[in-house]
Amino acid sequence: MNITSLNNSKVKEWNKLKIKKYRDQEKKFIIEGDHLVNIALKNNLVESLICIEDKYDFNNKYIVTKEIMKKLSSQVSISNEMAICNFINKNKIEGNVIILDNIQDPGNMGTIIRSAVAFNFKTIIISNDSVDLYNEKTIRATEGMLFNLNIIIGNLNKYIDELRKNDYLILGTDVNKGTNISDFKDKKIALIIGNEGQGMHNNLKLLCDKMVNIKMNSKCESLNAGVAASILMSEVYHE
Amino acid sequence: MNITSLNNSKVKEWNKLKIKKYRDQEKKFIIEGDHLVNIALKNNLVESLICIEDKYDFNNKYIVTKEIMKKLSSQVSISNEMAICNFINKNKIEGNVIILDNIQDPGNMGTIIRSAVAFNFKTIIISNDSVDLYNEKTIRATEGMLFNLNIIIGNLNKYIDELRKNDYLILGTDVNKGTNISDFKDKKIALIIGNEGQGMHNNLKLLCDKMVNIKMNSKCESLNAGVAASILMSEVYHE
Repeated sequence: MNITSLNNSKVKEWNKLKIKKYRDQEKKFIIEGDHLVNIALKNNLVESLICIEDKYDFNNKYIVTKEIMKKLSSQVSISNEMAICNFINKNKIEGNVIILDNIQDPGNMGTIIRSAVAFNFKTIIISNDSVDLYNEKTIRATEGMLFNLNIIIGNLNKYIDELRKNDYLILGTDVNKGTNISDFKDKKIALIIGNEGQGMHNNLKLLCDKMVNIKMNSKCESLNAGVAASILMSEVYHE
Repeated sequence: MNITSLNNSKVKEWNKLKIKKYRDQEKKFIIEGDHLVNIALKNNLVESLICIEDKYDFNNKYIVTKEIMKKLSSQVSISNEMAICNFINKNKIEGNVIILDNIQDPGNMGTIIRSAVAFNFKTIIISNDSVDLYNEKTIRATEGMLFNLNIIIGNLNKYIDELRKNDYLILGTDVNKGTNISDFKDKKIALIIGNEGQGMHNNLKLLCDKMVNIKMNSKCESLNAGVAASILMSEVYHE
Protein backbone atom coordinates (compact mmCIF):
# COMPACT_ATOMS: atom_id res chain seq x y z
CA MET A 1 0.00 0.00 0.00
CA ASN A 2 1.27 3.47 -0.90
CA ILE A 3 0.81 6.48 1.37
CA THR A 4 1.70 9.96 0.17
CA SER A 5 -0.27 12.24 2.49
CA LEU A 6 1.12 13.45 5.81
CA ASN A 7 -2.49 13.56 7.01
CA ASN A 8 -3.19 9.90 6.32
CA SER A 9 -4.79 8.28 9.38
CA LYS A 10 -2.15 5.53 9.53
CA VAL A 11 0.61 8.14 9.64
CA LYS A 12 -1.14 9.94 12.48
CA GLU A 13 -1.62 6.67 14.35
CA TRP A 14 2.07 5.70 13.95
CA ASN A 15 3.27 9.15 14.95
CA LYS A 16 1.41 8.90 18.25
CA LEU A 17 3.62 5.94 19.17
CA LYS A 18 6.41 8.40 19.92
CA ILE A 19 4.51 9.08 23.14
CA LYS A 20 4.61 6.54 26.00
CA LYS A 21 0.90 6.91 26.78
CA TYR A 22 -0.07 5.76 23.29
CA ARG A 23 2.52 3.00 23.21
CA ASP A 24 1.10 1.59 26.45
CA GLN A 25 -2.45 1.91 25.12
CA GLU A 26 -1.74 0.20 21.79
CA LYS A 27 0.94 -2.17 23.14
CA LYS A 28 3.06 -1.24 20.14
CA PHE A 29 6.30 0.65 19.52
CA ILE A 30 8.20 2.04 16.61
CA ILE A 31 11.71 1.14 15.45
CA GLU A 32 13.92 2.79 12.88
CA GLY A 33 16.76 1.84 10.54
CA ASP A 34 17.65 -1.30 8.59
CA HIS A 35 19.65 -2.93 11.42
CA LEU A 36 16.79 -2.90 13.94
CA VAL A 37 14.10 -3.60 11.34
CA ASN A 38 15.96 -6.66 10.05
CA ILE A 39 16.38 -8.10 13.55
CA ALA A 40 12.68 -7.51 14.31
CA LEU A 41 11.66 -9.16 11.02
CA LYS A 42 13.84 -12.15 11.80
CA ASN A 43 12.13 -12.47 15.21
CA ASN A 44 8.63 -12.16 13.68
CA LEU A 45 7.87 -9.10 15.77
CA VAL A 46 6.95 -6.69 13.01
CA GLU A 47 3.30 -5.73 12.69
CA SER A 48 3.66 -3.12 9.94
CA LEU A 49 6.64 -2.29 7.80
CA ILE A 50 7.08 1.29 6.63
CA CYS A 51 9.60 1.97 3.88
CA ILE A 52 10.59 4.34 1.13
CA GLU A 53 11.51 1.62 -1.37
CA ASP A 54 9.60 -1.61 -1.91
CA LYS A 55 12.48 -4.01 -1.33
CA TYR A 56 11.21 -6.18 1.55
CA ASP A 57 9.33 -9.46 1.23
CA PHE A 58 6.70 -8.81 3.91
CA ASN A 59 2.91 -8.73 3.76
CA ASN A 60 1.77 -5.76 5.81
CA LYS A 61 3.92 -3.18 4.08
CA TYR A 62 3.46 0.57 3.49
CA ILE A 63 5.48 2.50 0.93
CA VAL A 64 5.69 6.11 2.05
CA THR A 65 7.29 9.38 0.96
CA LYS A 66 10.44 10.86 2.45
CA GLU A 67 8.31 13.58 4.05
CA ILE A 68 6.29 10.98 5.94
CA MET A 69 9.47 9.22 7.02
CA LYS A 70 10.86 12.53 8.24
CA LYS A 71 7.70 13.18 10.26
CA LEU A 72 7.85 9.76 11.93
CA SER A 73 11.61 9.77 12.53
CA SER A 74 13.28 10.70 15.82
CA GLN A 75 16.71 11.01 14.23
CA VAL A 76 18.47 13.73 12.27
CA SER A 77 19.08 11.73 9.10
CA ILE A 78 16.07 9.92 7.64
CA SER A 79 16.07 6.13 7.58
CA ASN A 80 14.78 4.16 4.61
CA GLU A 81 12.74 1.86 6.82
CA MET A 82 10.80 1.81 10.06
CA ALA A 83 8.53 -0.78 11.62
CA ILE A 84 5.69 -0.94 14.07
CA CYS A 85 6.29 -3.81 16.52
CA ASN A 86 4.15 -5.42 19.16
CA PHE A 87 5.35 -5.17 22.76
CA ILE A 88 7.73 -8.00 23.58
CA ASN A 89 5.88 -10.88 25.14
CA LYS A 90 8.75 -13.12 26.22
CA ASN A 91 8.52 -13.11 30.00
CA LYS A 92 9.88 -16.45 31.11
CA ILE A 93 12.42 -16.38 33.92
CA GLU A 94 15.47 -18.39 32.88
CA GLY A 95 19.27 -18.25 33.07
CA ASN A 96 21.07 -15.47 34.87
CA VAL A 97 18.81 -12.50 35.59
CA ILE A 98 19.59 -8.79 35.68
CA ILE A 99 17.23 -6.55 37.65
CA LEU A 100 16.98 -2.78 37.09
CA ASP A 101 15.87 -0.78 40.11
CA ASN A 102 14.79 2.69 38.95
CA ILE A 103 17.25 3.15 36.08
CA GLN A 104 16.48 6.57 34.57
CA ASP A 105 18.80 7.01 31.61
CA PRO A 106 17.57 5.36 28.39
CA GLY A 107 21.15 4.98 27.14
CA ASN A 108 22.07 3.06 30.29
CA MET A 109 19.05 0.77 30.00
CA GLY A 110 19.78 0.08 26.33
CA THR A 111 23.45 -0.58 27.04
CA ILE A 112 22.60 -3.00 29.84
CA ILE A 113 20.25 -4.94 27.54
CA ARG A 114 22.96 -5.12 24.87
CA SER A 115 25.55 -6.33 27.40
CA ALA A 116 23.10 -8.81 28.97
CA VAL A 117 22.82 -10.65 25.65
CA ALA A 118 26.62 -10.49 25.24
CA PHE A 119 27.20 -12.12 28.64
CA ASN A 120 24.40 -14.69 28.50
CA PHE A 121 22.04 -13.13 30.99
CA LYS A 122 18.76 -14.48 29.62
CA THR A 123 16.21 -12.43 31.54
CA ILE A 124 15.84 -8.79 32.51
CA ILE A 125 13.37 -7.54 35.13
CA ILE A 126 12.70 -3.80 35.07
CA SER A 127 11.05 -1.86 37.93
CA ASN A 128 7.87 0.07 37.13
CA ASP A 129 9.62 3.33 38.01
CA SER A 130 12.46 2.86 35.50
CA VAL A 131 12.66 4.71 32.18
CA ASP A 132 10.45 3.29 29.42
CA LEU A 133 11.88 0.26 27.60
CA TYR A 134 10.17 1.35 24.38
CA ASN A 135 11.58 4.89 24.44
CA GLU A 136 13.38 5.38 21.10
CA LYS A 137 16.70 6.17 22.81
CA THR A 138 16.55 2.97 24.85
CA ILE A 139 15.77 0.93 21.76
CA ARG A 140 18.56 2.55 19.77
CA ALA A 141 21.10 1.83 22.54
CA THR A 142 20.11 -1.88 22.64
CA GLU A 143 21.32 -2.27 19.03
CA GLY A 144 18.45 -4.71 18.53
CA MET A 145 19.36 -6.94 21.46
CA LEU A 146 16.00 -6.33 23.18
CA PHE A 147 14.58 -8.97 20.85
CA ASN A 148 16.98 -11.59 22.23
CA LEU A 149 16.03 -11.47 25.89
CA ASN A 150 13.15 -12.33 28.23
CA ILE A 151 11.83 -9.00 29.44
CA ILE A 152 9.59 -8.42 32.47
CA ILE A 153 8.41 -5.04 33.73
CA GLY A 154 6.86 -5.09 37.19
CA ASN A 155 7.11 -5.00 40.95
CA LEU A 156 10.62 -6.03 41.97
CA ASN A 157 9.69 -7.27 45.45
CA LYS A 158 7.29 -9.76 43.95
CA TYR A 159 9.79 -11.04 41.40
CA ILE A 160 12.65 -11.27 43.89
CA ASP A 161 10.39 -13.48 46.00
CA GLU A 162 9.76 -15.70 43.01
CA LEU A 163 13.48 -15.82 42.14
CA ARG A 164 14.37 -16.85 45.67
CA LYS A 165 11.83 -19.69 45.54
CA ASN A 166 13.56 -20.80 42.37
CA ASP A 167 16.96 -20.99 44.07
CA TYR A 168 18.42 -17.85 42.62
CA LEU A 169 21.19 -16.11 44.56
CA ILE A 170 20.06 -12.47 44.93
CA LEU A 171 23.03 -10.12 44.53
CA GLY A 172 22.87 -6.40 45.26
CA THR A 173 25.37 -3.75 44.24
CA ASP A 174 26.99 -1.13 46.42
CA VAL A 175 29.82 1.25 45.47
CA ASN A 176 31.36 1.03 48.91
CA LYS A 177 31.25 -2.58 49.97
CA GLY A 178 30.78 -6.10 48.74
CA THR A 179 32.56 -9.21 47.58
CA ASN A 180 33.81 -10.12 44.12
CA ILE A 181 30.99 -11.36 41.89
CA SER A 182 33.24 -13.97 40.26
CA ASP A 183 32.98 -15.99 43.50
CA PHE A 184 29.42 -16.82 42.41
CA LYS A 185 30.17 -17.75 38.81
CA ASP A 186 28.74 -21.27 39.23
CA LYS A 187 25.45 -20.11 40.83
CA LYS A 188 22.14 -19.03 39.32
CA ILE A 189 22.44 -15.27 39.72
CA ALA A 190 19.90 -12.44 39.97
CA LEU A 191 21.92 -9.20 39.97
CA ILE A 192 20.28 -5.91 41.00
CA ILE A 193 21.52 -2.60 39.52
CA GLY A 194 20.39 0.58 41.28
CA ASN A 195 19.50 4.10 40.20
CA GLU A 196 22.25 6.27 38.67
CA GLY A 197 22.31 8.79 41.51
CA GLN A 198 20.91 7.02 44.55
CA GLY A 199 21.85 3.39 43.98
CA MET A 200 19.51 0.61 45.10
CA HIS A 201 16.40 1.24 47.18
CA ASN A 202 17.13 0.35 50.82
CA ASN A 203 14.20 -2.05 51.06
CA LEU A 204 15.67 -4.08 48.19
CA LYS A 205 19.08 -4.21 49.84
CA LEU A 206 17.44 -6.10 52.71
CA LEU A 207 16.30 -8.77 50.26
CA CYS A 208 19.81 -9.50 48.96
CA ASP A 209 21.80 -12.61 49.85
CA LYS A 210 25.09 -10.83 49.18
CA MET A 211 26.38 -7.44 48.06
CA VAL A 212 28.97 -7.31 45.29
CA ASN A 213 31.13 -4.46 44.08
CA ILE A 214 33.88 -3.58 41.64
CA LYS A 215 37.37 -2.90 42.93
CA MET A 216 38.63 0.48 41.84
CA ASN A 217 40.58 3.63 42.69
CA SER A 218 38.81 5.63 45.38
CA LYS A 219 39.41 8.89 43.44
CA CYS A 220 36.47 7.77 41.30
CA GLU A 221 33.31 7.73 43.42
CA SER A 222 31.34 5.45 41.13
CA LEU A 223 31.10 4.08 37.62
CA ASN A 224 28.41 4.77 35.05
CA ALA A 225 25.50 2.38 35.80
CA GLY A 226 25.61 0.76 32.35
CA VAL A 227 29.34 0.20 32.70
CA ALA A 228 29.06 -1.22 36.23
CA ALA A 229 26.30 -3.64 35.20
CA SER A 230 28.29 -4.73 32.15
CA ILE A 231 31.52 -5.33 34.07
CA LEU A 232 29.70 -7.43 36.68
CA MET A 233 27.90 -9.49 34.04
CA SER A 234 31.18 -10.01 32.13
CA GLU A 235 32.82 -11.34 35.28
CA VAL A 236 30.37 -14.23 35.56
CA TYR A 237 30.14 -14.93 31.83
CA HIS A 238 30.29 -18.51 30.76
CA GLU A 239 29.01 -20.23 27.62
CA MET B 1 31.18 41.46 41.09
CA ASN B 2 27.44 41.46 40.35
CA ILE B 3 26.02 41.07 36.86
CA THR B 4 22.32 41.56 36.19
CA SER B 5 22.16 42.26 32.45
CA LEU B 6 21.86 39.52 29.87
CA ASN B 7 23.74 41.84 27.52
CA ASN B 8 26.78 42.22 29.75
CA SER B 9 29.96 41.63 27.75
CA LYS B 10 31.18 38.90 30.15
CA VAL B 11 27.94 37.00 29.73
CA LYS B 12 28.29 37.19 25.95
CA GLU B 13 31.89 36.02 26.14
CA TRP B 14 31.02 33.06 28.40
CA ASN B 15 28.07 32.09 26.26
CA LYS B 16 30.31 31.77 23.21
CA LEU B 17 32.21 28.99 25.00
CA LYS B 18 29.29 26.67 24.17
CA ILE B 19 30.77 26.57 20.67
CA LYS B 20 33.92 24.54 19.97
CA LYS B 21 35.47 27.21 17.75
CA TYR B 22 35.47 29.75 20.59
CA ARG B 23 36.64 27.23 23.16
CA ASP B 24 39.64 26.41 20.96
CA GLN B 25 40.33 30.11 20.41
CA GLU B 26 40.15 31.05 24.10
CA LYS B 27 41.50 27.73 25.41
CA LYS B 28 38.70 27.78 27.97
CA PHE B 29 35.58 25.75 28.65
CA ILE B 30 32.51 25.99 30.80
CA ILE B 31 31.36 23.61 33.52
CA GLU B 32 28.09 23.45 35.39
CA GLY B 33 26.77 22.22 38.73
CA ASP B 34 28.23 22.03 42.24
CA HIS B 35 29.84 18.60 41.80
CA LEU B 36 31.97 19.60 38.80
CA VAL B 37 32.66 23.11 40.09
CA ASN B 38 33.92 21.80 43.42
CA ILE B 39 36.27 19.31 41.77
CA ALA B 40 37.62 22.03 39.45
CA LEU B 41 38.14 24.41 42.40
CA LYS B 42 39.98 21.71 44.30
CA ASN B 43 42.26 21.21 41.27
CA ASN B 44 42.89 24.98 40.89
CA LEU B 45 41.50 24.94 37.38
CA VAL B 46 38.81 27.59 37.74
CA GLU B 47 39.44 30.93 36.02
CA SER B 48 36.08 32.56 36.81
CA LEU B 49 33.34 31.40 39.11
CA ILE B 50 29.73 32.24 38.20
CA CYS B 51 27.08 31.76 40.85
CA ILE B 52 23.65 32.83 41.99
CA GLU B 53 24.54 32.98 45.69
CA ASP B 54 27.78 34.35 47.11
CA LYS B 55 28.78 31.27 49.08
CA TYR B 56 32.21 30.41 47.64
CA ASP B 57 35.55 31.61 48.93
CA PHE B 58 37.15 32.43 45.58
CA ASN B 59 38.61 35.63 44.18
CA ASN B 60 37.44 35.95 40.60
CA LYS B 61 33.74 35.52 41.30
CA TYR B 62 30.63 36.82 39.53
CA ILE B 63 27.21 36.83 41.16
CA VAL B 64 24.57 36.64 38.45
CA THR B 65 20.79 36.42 38.07
CA LYS B 66 18.83 33.25 37.40
CA GLU B 67 18.10 34.57 33.89
CA ILE B 68 21.81 34.79 33.13
CA MET B 69 22.36 31.30 34.52
CA LYS B 70 19.54 30.02 32.34
CA LYS B 71 21.09 31.61 29.25
CA LEU B 72 24.49 30.04 29.94
CA SER B 73 23.15 26.62 30.95
CA SER B 74 22.98 23.61 28.65
CA GLN B 75 20.68 21.71 30.99
CA VAL B 76 16.96 21.73 31.65
CA SER B 77 17.13 22.65 35.32
CA ILE B 78 19.31 25.63 36.23
CA SER B 79 22.39 25.08 38.34
CA ASN B 80 23.41 27.45 41.11
CA GLU B 81 27.01 27.56 39.93
CA MET B 82 29.11 27.39 36.81
CA ALA B 83 32.77 27.99 36.18
CA ILE B 84 35.04 28.97 33.34
CA CYS B 85 38.08 26.70 33.30
CA ASN B 86 41.32 26.76 31.37
CA PHE B 87 42.02 23.85 29.03
CA ILE B 88 43.68 21.00 30.89
CA ASN B 89 47.42 21.21 30.58
CA LYS B 90 48.47 17.91 32.14
CA ASN B 91 50.03 16.05 29.25
CA LYS B 92 52.68 13.80 30.75
CA ILE B 93 52.64 10.19 29.60
CA GLU B 94 52.62 7.92 32.63
CA GLY B 95 51.01 4.73 33.89
CA ASN B 96 48.66 2.69 31.73
CA VAL B 97 47.43 4.64 28.71
CA ILE B 98 44.08 4.53 26.91
CA ILE B 99 43.97 5.75 23.31
CA LEU B 100 40.77 6.86 21.59
CA ASP B 101 40.75 6.44 17.82
CA ASN B 102 37.89 8.51 16.38
CA ILE B 103 35.38 8.13 19.23
CA GLN B 104 32.30 10.11 18.18
CA ASP B 105 29.83 9.88 21.05
CA PRO B 106 30.44 12.40 23.87
CA GLY B 107 28.79 10.06 26.38
CA ASN B 108 31.22 7.29 25.43
CA MET B 109 34.25 9.56 25.72
CA GLY B 110 33.10 10.86 29.11
CA THR B 111 32.39 7.35 30.37
CA ILE B 112 35.82 6.14 29.28
CA ILE B 113 37.50 9.02 31.13
CA ARG B 114 35.49 8.21 34.26
CA SER B 115 36.38 4.51 34.04
CA ALA B 116 40.05 5.28 33.28
CA VAL B 117 40.40 7.03 36.65
CA ALA B 118 38.54 4.15 38.33
CA PHE B 119 40.94 1.57 36.91
CA ASN B 120 44.18 3.54 37.34
CA PHE B 121 44.83 4.38 33.72
CA LYS B 122 46.79 7.62 34.22
CA THR B 123 46.87 8.99 30.68
CA ILE B 124 44.40 9.34 27.81
CA ILE B 125 45.41 10.15 24.24
CA ILE B 126 42.59 11.31 21.99
CA SER B 127 42.79 11.43 18.18
CA ASN B 128 42.23 14.78 16.48
CA ASP B 129 39.15 13.37 14.71
CA SER B 130 37.36 12.33 17.95
CA VAL B 131 34.48 14.28 19.48
CA ASP B 132 35.50 17.37 21.45
CA LEU B 133 36.71 16.70 25.00
CA TYR B 134 35.27 20.03 26.14
CA ASN B 135 31.79 19.39 24.74
CA GLU B 136 29.33 19.80 27.64
CA LYS B 137 27.98 16.27 27.20
CA THR B 138 31.46 14.78 27.39
CA ILE B 139 32.28 16.78 30.50
CA ARG B 140 29.02 15.82 32.18
CA ALA B 141 29.64 12.10 31.49
CA THR B 142 33.12 12.27 33.06
CA GLU B 143 31.56 13.19 36.43
CA GLY B 144 34.55 15.45 37.01
CA MET B 145 37.14 12.73 36.39
CA LEU B 146 38.71 14.68 33.49
CA PHE B 147 40.55 16.71 36.12
CA ASN B 148 42.25 13.55 37.45
CA LEU B 149 43.96 12.36 34.28
CA ASN B 150 46.78 13.33 31.90
CA ILE B 151 45.05 14.28 28.67
CA ILE B 152 46.67 14.56 25.25
CA ILE B 153 44.87 15.39 22.00
CA GLY B 154 46.90 14.77 18.88
CA ASN B 155 48.17 12.54 16.11
CA LEU B 156 47.95 8.92 17.26
CA ASN B 157 50.71 7.59 14.98
CA LYS B 158 53.20 9.99 16.53
CA TYR B 159 52.22 9.13 20.09
CA ILE B 160 52.19 5.38 19.47
CA ASP B 161 55.76 5.72 18.23
CA GLU B 162 56.69 7.51 21.40
CA LEU B 163 54.92 4.95 23.58
CA ARG B 164 56.76 2.10 21.85
CA LYS B 165 60.12 3.81 22.51
CA ASN B 166 59.10 3.94 26.16
CA ASP B 167 58.50 0.17 26.30
CA TYR B 168 54.73 0.28 26.23
CA LEU B 169 52.92 -2.78 24.90
CA ILE B 170 50.52 -1.47 22.22
CA LEU B 171 47.20 -3.35 22.39
CA GLY B 172 44.50 -3.03 19.75
CA THR B 173 40.87 -4.10 20.06
CA ASP B 174 38.89 -6.21 17.64
CA VAL B 175 35.39 -7.63 18.14
CA ASN B 176 36.26 -10.82 16.30
CA LYS B 177 39.69 -11.89 17.41
CA GLY B 178 42.30 -11.38 20.08
CA THR B 179 43.68 -12.70 23.32
CA ASN B 180 42.57 -11.99 26.85
CA ILE B 181 43.90 -8.64 28.11
CA SER B 182 44.49 -10.01 31.62
CA ASP B 183 47.50 -11.90 30.20
CA PHE B 184 49.24 -8.50 30.09
CA LYS B 185 48.32 -7.32 33.57
CA ASP B 186 51.95 -6.91 34.62
CA LYS B 187 53.00 -4.88 31.52
CA LYS B 188 52.89 -1.17 30.76
CA ILE B 189 49.83 -1.05 28.53
CA ALA B 190 48.63 1.36 25.83
CA LEU B 191 45.13 0.21 24.85
CA ILE B 192 43.49 1.53 21.65
CA ILE B 193 39.68 1.83 21.43
CA GLY B 194 38.22 2.29 17.95
CA ASN B 195 35.27 4.18 16.52
CA GLU B 196 31.74 3.09 17.53
CA GLY B 197 30.73 1.88 14.07
CA GLN B 198 33.95 1.08 12.22
CA GLY B 199 36.33 0.07 15.00
CA MET B 200 40.02 0.95 14.76
CA HIS B 201 41.61 2.47 11.67
CA ASN B 202 43.45 -0.24 9.72
CA ASN B 203 46.75 1.65 9.73
CA LEU B 204 46.69 1.68 13.54
CA LYS B 205 46.01 -2.05 13.69
CA LEU B 206 49.35 -2.56 11.96
CA LEU B 207 51.09 -0.71 14.79
CA CYS B 208 49.74 -3.01 17.52
CA ASP B 209 51.82 -5.61 19.30
CA LYS B 210 48.73 -7.69 20.12
CA MET B 211 44.99 -7.59 19.60
CA VAL B 212 42.72 -8.20 22.59
CA ASN B 213 39.01 -8.86 22.78
CA ILE B 214 36.20 -9.66 25.18
CA LYS B 215 34.70 -13.14 25.19
CA MET B 216 30.95 -13.04 24.65
CA ASN B 217 27.89 -14.63 23.07
CA SER B 218 28.03 -14.31 19.29
CA LYS B 219 24.34 -13.23 19.20
CA CYS B 220 25.64 -9.82 20.25
CA GLU B 221 27.81 -8.38 17.47
CA SER B 222 29.60 -5.87 19.65
CA LEU B 223 29.47 -3.98 22.92
CA ASN B 224 29.03 -0.26 23.42
CA ALA B 225 32.49 1.36 23.02
CA GLY B 226 32.43 2.89 26.50
CA VAL B 227 31.49 -0.48 28.01
CA ALA B 228 34.14 -2.39 26.05
CA ALA B 229 36.88 0.07 27.06
CA SER B 230 35.78 -0.07 30.70
CA ILE B 231 35.68 -3.88 30.85
CA LEU B 232 39.17 -4.13 29.34
CA MET B 233 40.59 -1.54 31.74
CA SER B 234 38.92 -3.27 34.71
CA GLU B 235 40.56 -6.57 33.72
CA VAL B 236 44.06 -5.16 34.14
CA TYR B 237 43.28 -3.03 37.21
CA HIS B 238 45.77 -3.15 40.03
CA GLU B 239 46.51 -0.67 42.77
